[in-house]
Amino acid sequence: VTHARLRPASLATDGASVRIIDQRALPAALVERDLRTLDEVVDAIATLAVRGAPAIGVCAVAGVAVAMRGYAASSRAVFLRELDDVAARVTAVRPTAVNLAWAVARAVRRAHATDGDGGAILGALQAEAHAVEHDDVAMSRAIGQHALQLLDNPVRALTHCNTGALATAGGGTALAAIYAAHAAGRDVAVYATETRPLLQGARLTAWELQQAGVPVTVLADGAAASLLRLGTVTSVLVGADRIAANGDVANKIGTYALALAAATHGVPFYVLAPKSTVDADSADGRAIPIELRAREELARCGTVPILPDGVAVWNPAFDITPASLVTAIVTDSGVHRPPYRFADT
Amino acid sequence: VTHARLRPASLATDGASVRIIDQRALPAALVERDLRTLDEVVDAIATLAVRGAPAIGVCAVAGVAVAMRGYAASSRAVFLRELDDVAARVTAVRPTAVNLAWAVARAVRRAHATDGDGGAILGALQAEAHAVEHDDVAMSRAIGQHALQLLDNPVRALTHCNTGALATAGGGTALAAIYAAHAAGRDVAVYATETRPLLQGARLTAWELQQAGVPVTVLADGAAASLLRLGTVTSVLVGADRIAANGDVANKIGTYALALAAATHGVPFYVLAPKSTVDADSADGRAIPIELRAREELARCGTVPILPDGVAVWNPAFDITPASLVTAIVTDSGVHRPPYRFADT
Repeated sequence: VTHARLRPASLATDGASVRIIDQRALPAALVERDLRTLDEVVDAIATLAVRGAPAIGVCAVAGVAVAMRGYAASSRAVFLRELDDVAARVTAVRPTAVNLAWAVARAVRRAHATDGDGGAILGALQAEAHAVEHDDVAMSRAIGQHALQLLDNPVRALTHCNTGALATAGGGTALAAIYAAHAAGRDVAVYATETRPLLQGARLTAWELQQAGVPVTVLADGAAASLLRLGTVTSVLVGADRIAANGDVANKIGTYALALAAATHGVPFYVLAPKSTVDADSADGRAIPIELRAREELARCGTVPILPDGVAVWNPAFDITPASLVTAIVTDSGVHRPPYRFADT
Repeated sequence: VTHARLRPASLATDGASVRIIDQRALPAALVERDLRTLDEVVDAIATLAVRGAPAIGVCAVAGVAVAMRGYAASSRAVFLRELDDVAARVTAVRPTAVNLAWAVARAVRRAHATDGDGGAILGALQAEAHAVEHDDVAMSRAIGQHALQLLDNPVRALTHCNTGALATAGGGTALAAIYAAHAAGRDVAVYATETRPLLQGARLTAWELQQAGVPVTVLADGAAASLLRLGTVTSVLVGADRIAANGDVANKIGTYALALAAATHGVPFYVLAPKSTVDADSADGRAIPIELRAREELARCGTVPILPDGVAVWNPAFDITPASLVTAIVTDSGVHRPPYRFADT
C-alpha cells in the first residue's frame, strides 16, 4: 500500500479517547474525531462512522478502555462488574459482525485474568486495545500474502462494499489482497460496486484505492452480473462479517447476488476475512442474525429525499452466501478450500 | 387502477406542444411541462424527464408532430425530407428501447402514405401521435388481462425499475398486471427494487403504487436475492426495452441479477411488454445495443457527491437476460412460453 497507513480507530496514547476517521464524511472530507464517552463510541458504531467488521472490533475495545477510565480508582469487584455492563452494551450495537463480540470478549477475558484493582485492570484493557489494533494490521498482511497465490497477473477484481484500510486497523481484508498484488508489481485494476444503501464502495473503496494509486471503476450493484458476463473479471473478492462453521458467509447485502452471478460465469469467488470472523458456534448461515437497519438509509441519499413519505422499506444490512458458492476462504491462517469445516480457532 | 390516468406524454390538442410529466421531479413534486421544440423533446428523452420504453415512443411521435409544425406550409417534398431528418434525430437519442424507433417509424410510414402537401401530412402526423397514445393504453389493458392467468392470490410480486403508468401512456406494462389483479380484488403487495442509479423504483414505482392504494415495500437492488430466498415472493414481474427474436430480453440494468436469483429459488420470472418491444431483427441479445450513460448518474445522488473526483464509472443503462431464465413473456397478443420464436409482428 503506497499511502501512509490510515487508522480508522485507535486508542489515544493517553487512553482518554478513541481517535476515529468519521467515514460518514468521506469522500468529501477526511475528518478525524475523538470519542471520549461510551455513548459517543456506541453512536459512532451504530451510525457507521466506524464500520467494517475488523475496524468495529478495534474501535469497540478501545471504546471499552475509554469508558472504564472513570473506574480506575474502583475496587476490582466494582470494576469488573461495570466492565461486564459496558461490554454487553457495546457488543449489542451491531449483531451480525462477530468481530465486535470477539474483540470485546478478548478484552474482558484479559481483564479477568489480570490481578489487582481497577487501576491495574484498566492498564491491561488499554494494552489489549493496542494489541487488538496491532494484531489486526498483522492479520491484514497475512491475508494479503496468502491471497497472492489465488490471483493471476493481470488482476481484474470485482469487489463489494469496503474491505480496505477503512474497514480494518489499516490493512484491509479483501483489499489487502489487492494491495499485496499491487505492491508485488502486478497489473491490478478493481471494479467496485457502489454498495447501496450507504455507498461504501463508491465513497470509501474508490477513495482509498485512488489514494493508493490502484485504478478503480465504480458500477451500480445491479450492473455487476453484466460485468461478470463480459469475462474480463478474473476474481470476485469480498470480506465477511461472520463465517459459519460450514463456510456460509454473512457479508454486506448484495454479496449473495454477486456470488450467484460469479458461479454462473465461472469466475472464482473468494472471501477474505480474519480468522476471528469465523464463528464456530454458528453451524450454518441460518444461525447468523441479520441486522435490519433504518428506513432512513433508503429514504434519503445524503439530504435528498428519494422515497415517498409513508412507503415501507426492507433494509437488511447483510445477506448469507452459501458455502457452495464460495471458491475459497482466505484467513490469516491460510487458504481454506471446500468442504469447509471450521472449528474453534 | 384506482387513480385517474396519468399521462406521462401527450400531444396537446392544439398540436403546439408535448405535455409531459417531468419524472425527474418525482416523488417530491408532480410537475407538468410543455415541450415546444425538437430540442426540448430530445432533451426530455435524453435526461429521462420522460422514460420507459412505451412512454418514450409516445413522446417521440408527439415530438415529431410538434417539430414539423413549422413546415405546415411547405411542399410535400420539403416536408418529407425534413421529416426524415427529424425522425432520425429523435430515434438516435436512446438506442436500446426499440419502441422509440418503432413509434417514429410508424409515424413516418403514415406520413409517406398520406396524400397532399405539408399541411395534410402534418394533420396525419398529429392523428398518428394521438393513435400511438391511444393504442398504448389499450396495450396496457391487454397485458394486464393476459397476465392475470399467471398470478396467484395472494400476489406478492417483486418488480424492478418503473413499468407502470409513468413508463407508458398511463396503463403500465409489468405494473399493468398488478393493477389488473388489484382491480380484480386480489390480495396484492409489491416489492420494488430502488433501481440505481436513477432510482426509478423508489421514486416512481413506489409513488404510483402508493397513489393507487397498492401496498409497496422498497429494497436495495442488492437485497433482492435475499428476498427471493425467503420464499414469500410469488413472481418477479419486469418490463423490457427490447426483446430479441429468441426471447432474450434487454431491460433496466439489474434485471439479469434478479433473473438469476429467481431461477435459483424457483420463482417465476415474467417479462411484460408491448409486442412493439419485440425486435425480430435482433436474433438474440448480442444484437441489441446497450446504451452507456453518463458518469454523473453514479457520481451524484441528487446534489450530493458520492464519488471521489476522477474515479471512473461503468454505467450501462440496460442488461440482457437470456431467454432461458424467462418463464413467460406477456405481450398485448397474449402469453408466450419458451421456446420463444418471435417473427415480425
